This record gives sequence, structure tokens and C-alpha cells, in this order.
Amino acid sequence: MHQEEFRVRTAGRQFLDLTSRIAEVVRHSGVRQGLCNVFLSHTSASLVICENADPAVRRDLERFMQRIARDGDPAYEHDTEGPDDMPAHIRTVLTQSSLVIPVRDSRLALGTWQGVYLWEHRTSAHERRVLVTVW
Amino acid sequence: MHQEEFRVRTAGRQFLDLTSRIAEVVRHSGVRQGLCNVFLSHTSASLVICENADPAVRRDLERFMQRIARDGDPAYEHDTEGPDDMPAHIRTVLTQSSLVIPVRDSRLALGTWQGVYLWEHRTSAHERRVLVTVW
Amino acid sequence: MHQEEFRVRTAGRQFLDLTSRIAEVVRHSGVRQGLCNVFLSHTSASLVICENADPAVRRDLERFMQRIARDGDPAYEHDTEGPDDMPAHIRTVLTQSSLVIPVRDSRLALGTWQGVYLWEHRTSAHERRVLVTVW
Repeated sequence: MHQEEFRVRTAGRQFLDLTSRIAEVVRHSGVRQGLCNVFLSHTSASLVICENADPAVRRDLERFMQRIARDGDPAYEHDTEGPDDMPAHIRTVLTQSSLVIPVRDSRLALGTWQGVYLWEHRTSAHERRVLVTVW
Repeated sequence: MHQEEFRVRTAGRQFLDLTSRIAEVVRHSGVRQGLCNVFLSHTSASLVICENADPAVRRDLERFMQRIARDGDPAYEHDTEGPDDMPAHIRTVLTQSSLVIPVRDSRLALGTWQGVYLWEHRTSAHERRVLVTVW
Repeated sequence: MHQEEFRVRTAGRQFLDLTSRIAEVVRHSGVRQGLCNVFLSHTSASLVICENADPAVRRDLERFMQRIARDGDPAYEHDTEGPDDMPAHIRTVLTQSSLVIPVRDSRLALGTWQGVYLWEHRTSAHERRVLVTVW
């Protein structure tokens, strides 16, 4: 059981590819066959496994979320931190805070087109903590 | 590997904070560094990790789901148990039935603002079974 | 730690019940008490735990997704593989690529009405790889 935390700095709404950072933790762990958990301890950013080839996919995902959870919707009660506050919580609940990925032959058993992304849902920059556990 | 089940009684649509109940199972387990799985064996209630400070966040989440998966939508074929039957299945599929949370220093490694909630999606009261595994 | 991969052939958009295939891997593993991870290494098909009794539930889920992530929406930038390309990525991000299910008494600890499904989001047939790990 190997546990390692790292921090990433986001620049407001964006996708950050964490795949190589996580793969590095798997290498450190020495685990050949097992599993890897990635955990994000925040409620306004989330984790997704998504297509890693065409950046337009991430732009379309961002647009999709802006459409179904509109910023500044007057229906929101919670807007303490601005028009992107409640949408960020909704987006987090609709995606993941925790991912489990198998490890095979000492590597993440991701498909060819799968990347692991941190999705920042706030419009301003944030520091985010990522805890990786391999076993 | 420590496995423990508990039951909770919901009062219809609501969020029930399970964080302290799960933390208790982690204590029973004696695990210092590891992981914890929370599993809900139902298809019309779900688990979410969400903001634990302002109850308005949960009211907004409930309103969001009522908007995107409208109760009694005539487009639903499946309405055997009433207008909230199919929306409950949709909400479950859009959120989680199973969560993995890291354990560090004998405690759930949740962020400051993260709570673990059971989200009841049926409008009537239900008894729900929660299975927690720590390893 | 037991790891086994199998392949399934989908016939375009549909739900494939994987429950018995996964239960078989759990039997092979010899694990009595533990956990099981199911991982799908694709970005245009996903995994869901959903109601297994009435097929209308799955038809309603399919209709729901067609409504919120419309095929051929002119707002999508990414449409390289056709009108169902970007919706498939959106559906995958809104559901799961990885599931963790507890094992109790050598069996998947699923509820009575829970089935594990592969949800094909592309309109054409695909071969999909499923990696199951039991520990």
C-alpha cells in the first residue's frame, strides 16, 4: 500500500492531464499487478477519464456543462462565491471525486484513448490536492 | 479487510450525512493507511461527496435534478411506482452507488468541505442498506 | 489479487448485462470477503449499476441521454466519427468507467434490483474490453 499526495495549480476552468503524474506514483509504488485510486479532496473540481486525442472533446464537455448547469442561474440559492460557485458543485456531483484504475505489468491499464483529467470548475485559479493510493 | 453494514431510514427526498457513521467503521477496522469503500445496494438512492457547510448547496442540487429529470415526465415508460420512480433511477445513474475514499492516519482523507451523503431520490420514506469495507 | 479480462461485442446503442460474467470472475478468484473492480478501457461506452427488472428503465435512460446530449448538435466541435461521437464522450463522463463492488460470502454484494451493465453509446457495433480485478 503506497500513498502519495501532490498538488496542482489550475488557471481557472480547464482540464489538466494528470495521467503521467499518476503513472509516476505507480512506478514509485513498485506494484506490478493491482489497483490505483486517485482522490481529489475538493467539491468544486473533479476527476474524469476522458478522450485524450482531440482537445475539442474537452471544449465540448466544458460547453455541455455550461449549458446544463448555467452560471449565475437565478434559481440557485447558493452563490456566496459568485455565479460559478453552485455550478461547480453540480459539475462535481455529476462527475467523480475518486477514480479506481487497474495496474497491470507495473502500468496503469488505461485504454489507448483514455486520459485522467482534473477538471477545474471554478473560473478563478486554485491549488488542488490529489491523493494517489496504489495497492 | 473489515466489512460492516448499517441501515438508515430516509424520510423521502433528502440528503443524509453518513460521514461520521463511515468514520466510525474506519475506527473499528483499525486500518491506519488504506482505503474505504461505501456501497449502497439500491437503484433509487445514491451516494455523493459534496459540500458540507451550506445546506443551500443540497437544496440547489435537489432542484437541479428535479429540473433535468422531471417527475412525471410523460416521456417515461417506466412509472410503476409513481412519478418519482424513473427520475430516481436516472439520478442514481448520474451520481454514485459506490465510493472509494482513502484512509490516512486512521482517518478518512476527506477535504475540509467534503461530506459523504446518501441522497434519497424517492419521495417516500425508505430503509437503505450501506455496506462499508475498509482495507 | 486476481485479474481477468474479457471482451464483449455490442450491437450499437444498448445495455449489456455483465453481472453473471463478473460473478464468474469472482468465483475464479476464490475471494470470500473483499472487493471487485470492473474497468472499461473506452471513452464512448460506460458502466452503470442499474435496475435489472424492467427493461423499460434502460429504454428511459437511453431516451434521457438522447435528450440531454443530443446527437448531431451543431454546438459540438468534435464530430469526427459522426453525430453520435461527442454525445458518447459526454454520456461516458456522466456515468462510470470503473466500478467497485463489495464481495461477501464469495458473491457480489449487489442489491436484489441491481445489475451491472455495459452501456454502449455509439450507434455502431464495437468490441469492448472489460478488466475485472478481485482482491
